Amino acid sequence: MKEYRTTLQSLETPELILDTEKLSRNISRMERHLSSCKVPLRPHGKTAKSMEVMRRFGGMQQHGITVSTVKEAEYYFAGGIRDIIYAVGIAPDKLPRIFSLISRGAEITVILDSLAQAEAAAEEAKSAGVSLPVLIELDADGSRSGIAPEDLLLIRLGSYIHNASCLEMQGILTHAGSSYFSGSIDEIKRAAELERLQAVSASVKLKEAEIPCPVVSVGSTPTAAFGTSFQGVTEVRAGVFIFQDLVMAGIGVCTPEQIALSILTTVIGHKHDKQRIITDSGWTALSRDRGTAVQAVDQGYGVVCDITGGVIGDLIVSAASQEHGIITRRSGGRIDMECFPVGRKLRILPNHACATAACFDRYTLTDHTLAVTGRWERINGWR
Amino acid sequence: MKEYRTTLQSLETPELILDTEKLSRNISRMERHLSSCKVPLRPHGKTAKSMEVMRRFGGMQQHGITVSTVKEAEYYFAGGIRDIIYAVGIAPDKLPRIFSLISRGAEITVILDSLAQAEAAAEEAKSAGVSLPVLIELDADGSRSGIAPEDLLLIRLGSYIHNASCLEMQGILTHAGSSYFSGSIDEIKRAAELERLQAVSASVKLKEAEIPCPVVSVGSTPTAAFGTSFQGVTEVRAGVFIFQDLVMAGIGVCTPEQIALSILTTVIGHKHDKQRIITDSGWTALSRDRGTAVQAVDQGYGVVCDITGGVIGDLIVSAASQEHGIITRRSGGRIDMECFPVGRKLRILPNHACATAACFDRYTLTDHTLAVTGRWERINGWR
Repeated sequence: MKEYRTTLQSLETPELILDTEKLSRNISRMERHLSSCKVPLRPHGKTAKSMEVMRRFGGMQQHGITVSTVKEAEYYFAGGIRDIIYAVGIAPDKLPRIFSLISRGAEITVILDSLAQAEAAAEEAKSAGVSLPVLIELDADGSRSGIAPEDLLLIRLGSYIHNASCLEMQGILTHAGSSYFSGSIDEIKRAAELERLQAVSASVKLKEAEIPCPVVSVGSTPTAAFGTSFQGVTEVRAGVFIFQDLVMAGIGVCTPEQIALSILTTVIGHKHDKQRIITDSGWTALSRDRGTAVQAVDQGYGVVCDITGGVIGDLIVSAASQEHGIITRRSGGRIDMECFPVGRKLRILPNHACATAACFDRYTLTDHTLAVTGRWERINGWR
Repeated sequence: MKEYRTTLQSLETPELILDTEKLSRNISRMERHLSSCKVPLRPHGKTAKSMEVMRRFGGMQQHGITVSTVKEAEYYFAGGIRDIIYAVGIAPDKLPRIFSLISRGAEITVILDSLAQAEAAAEEAKSAGVSLPVLIELDADGSRSGIAPEDLLLIRLGSYIHNASCLEMQGILTHAGSSYFSGSIDEIKRAAELERLQAVSASVKLKEAEIPCPVVSVGSTPTAAFGTSFQGVTEVRAGVFIFQDLVMAGIGVCTPEQIALSILTTVIGHKHDKQRIITDSGWTALSRDRGTAVQAVDQGYGVVCDITGGVIGDLIVSAASQEHGIITRRSGGRIDMECFPVGRKLRILPNHACATAACFDRYTLTDHTLAVTGRWERINGWR
């Protein structure tokens, strides 16, 4: 345990820091909110990709989780989670690994939005001798994939799945992806209500056609956080809220102080003529995600904090190359370089928690004491 | 070897594909050019992060390599490469691992651009009983870090290093980072000449002050490819040319057909109303790098090819979420969806080879036959 009797100050950088106190508060806040709305939470495992993080959820064993890769499904199942929705449209090639999980006792539900996928899934399930639970992906807001609510394919597809002997029609799943681009809390609330209405009305159409639809699954961090009515919805999925990030702060879902994830970095130089501080954390550590570029306040590649996590004025990482971060003031003004000697440790808040965390294969844990309290693995990739 | 008797068609996706025939041609082209310019090449190991790739360089053992992390230095040294420049301004915290390598026989040179770094390095080297080779980082074009050519610090720093008993003054290193934003080949040629002139004139100033400067190291893929005079330069560093990418194609350094790296992906759905194809490769596979966004032709998150690597009309990945890619026509027009059934495999050319490769921990090798001819590991991260 010697390694853990250290503080952030003594770590080699870059390092992915997770404040477990903030993590716990973020999880409790969402659990309390959805509990008050009387709808279960099915957290998304793609943000943390860590069994240790997902164990923090009280209701996880009852309500299951969501994943974005088959590898996540395998990893979380090995960690004891049985009920898993793989929420990316199923490619036939990925079914053998899904079937292998099901044969070992996992309850994996796949999603799809076309007859071609349903036919391929039915055929593969039949030859594997497996019964495959299926949700139809609905496109609530035109943001990505799924069937448009008015498309008559919904009923044809529901009917096909219901009648296919090796498919189990579970219901509807949608994701209000456009809520990430909301301009106000009111807009998020409208996105939440639109998401709910589209999902519920699709489920009603299915039931009217005598197609079962026990599951009505919605979710995104903004709509989960600010939705107030989940009538007709059976579960809410969300992931980013676990850590929170600057994109979420930019649309009012959290404050910068609530962001549980940061990159520990070291000052390696200065450009006095350009009022720049150079650090050892470039896009390999921060990711190339520029999610705040389309927001009212562009945070560059992240907001600069002191080692305690306190935001320092208007300093941001304004540019990044592979292993260099360039810190400037957002306004472009002078920096008191004396305060940032070579070797000083800083922490950078991420634009997008999922993308920044994906640069690392472990979390270094801390709390308000800045002690290193442990390390948790995270899994990236697909195999 | 059973696994390798397969073709790209049968692989589960996303997968990072490396065409070893294109790789060899890219390496030979650069080696031939610099050989005709009578200047040695010191390839950058940060792009490939693979011993197998670096072994393809004829002159590697003679002229050494460049790295961007201490982990790369450790990895390549374990693979048999002794002469290594760690080309990111040295943070004092990283010196113990550098010294450990030196004590085992590695010739590691560090770079720095401030007295604070030089003093810290001298102190640490002294207490470790190590002699540390040092290059002064020069800022040829204001793009990132290094001493401005006119800054009198150059001589003070050179003198300090030369007189410090545990530091070995090796010379000057610069990087024409702004060449990546060139608008024409002529502009690249001017950037190459500027890079050379700045480095050579700094070396002359040092020598006039009786400070040794045996090494004059320059480089970037564009200036290495189009520089014609390297008079006074002792070595050229470059990395991206090994694979090439769309950013390089956008400034005329290569053609799209020469790009050796691609992401194999699978069609998982369609949005007929929006003329979109959905794939299973989002930003976890393609990276969030949008380097072509500032070029004349914005390639989104990458150019879409058929499985043989042939570019398909004007199809690009116009948007990406974590595990979804959205393909549209660059012009926004209609796509013949019949040609892109669910399950079809495609290949995506990357904006930025370093960033896309960093999403994977291995290369799957192929050639013009599309057979999977092997796998090479790559190393990411810092530890």
